[in-house]
Amino acid sequence: MVAASSAKPKIKFLKEPTSQAWVDLAINNIDIILLDHAQCERKAAGTAIQMMSRYPSSVELVRELTAIAQEELSHYTQVNNWLEKRGIPMKPVSPPPYGARLKKCVRKQEPDRMLDFLLVSALIEARSHERLGLIGEHCLEPELAKFYRSLMASEARHYGSYWLLATTYFNVELVNERLAELAEVESDVLRTLHSEPRVHS
Amino acid sequence: MVAASSAKPKIKFLKEPTSQAWVDLAINNIDIILLDHAQCERKAAGTAIQMMSRYPSSVELVRELTAIAQEELSHYTQVNNWLEKRGIPMKPVSPPPYGARLKKCVRKQEPDRMLDFLLVSALIEARSHERLGLIGEHCLEPELAKFYRSLMASEARHYGSYWLLATTYFNVELVNERLAELAEVESDVLRTLHSEPRVHS
Repeated sequence: MVAASSAKPKIKFLKEPTSQAWVDLAINNIDIILLDHAQCERKAAGTAIQMMSRYPSSVELVRELTAIAQEELSHYTQVNNWLEKRGIPMKPVSPPPYGARLKKCVRKQEPDRMLDFLLVSALIEARSHERLGLIGEHCLEPELAKFYRSLMASEARHYGSYWLLATTYFNVELVNERLAELAEVESDVLRTLHSEPRVHS
Repeated sequence: MVAASSAKPKIKFLKEPTSQAWVDLAINNIDIILLDHAQCERKAAGTAIQMMSRYPSSVELVRELTAIAQEELSHYTQVNNWLEKRGIPMKPVSPPPYGARLKKCVRKQEPDRMLDFLLVSALIEARSHERLGLIGEHCLEPELAKFYRSLMASEARHYGSYWLLATTYFNVELVNERLAELAEVESDVLRTLHSEPRVHS
């Protein structure tokens, strides 16, 4: 796999960096990426709320995920504004296999389930951070590129928050060991570029 | 049913006003009401996001429900702050039959389903508005009463928004006819006071 910018991933949680092939696919289909990106933000907010209802007594988790859900909804509105500005009608796009493949890794029994949920979310946020950053770097439209760069700070905070939450409820060695296993799967899913342009193709 | 403040409901969508019995139950069990209220806010945010994913091409719906979900999450945080302030550990409380009974009224086929979803949400928000207002009026702790009164404006906006969205996608006569049917069920569910203190007992 050829890295977009360097041979090593810039984001420490990720096993492998995103390929130049993905960057090309995304930049050449930016309108579809925007549609998919809107869906990703809405799904991320929904996932955070789902976790809050699953673990309603876990104070730190509830507080942190409420803040994350609010930020995702704010990004969702911002991406929808971009769609409107560009005259792209809002419509659903089929998801790539990425999310479903990662969800399969979540073990059924607690407390493993909670740990896996947090780490899968951390990885998805880390990958989104990396890829939205690549759009910010390579997008040919300066205004849109600027918008993507503006999302970077909070996306980075999100993956850090998920990891930190995992270490709040689990031993840090266990967290990092499981993170490494899941990161392997995550990079593996992306090794074959999905044919449709999506944030997680 | 004896009304809390007047024989007619103050909130025009509602068929019958809340009983004094509910007010007494709520005021005498304010800590449990706070726990249940937190859950209600989180669930309301989750429901709004679910509807956004079900109707991703409906621009007005998506915009309005994104704003509603954000407000519900902000209230959720505020209620959780009250729980923390009072030293009440966050924990799940069993829901009253209210939500499930109303959900049963949602017809399976589109576009009826969308209409029913919007109107059931409008009714739940209208009832919440009424009851949180009653807490604001009758709560013996001035600070907490003030907090409940502060929530009123946005709760009122929410039920109006759901009704307005219904009229965006459906004929206003049809909307009001169906609203009257559902309002009948809604008041009927509440006619028998649920034994546990909940926002929708």
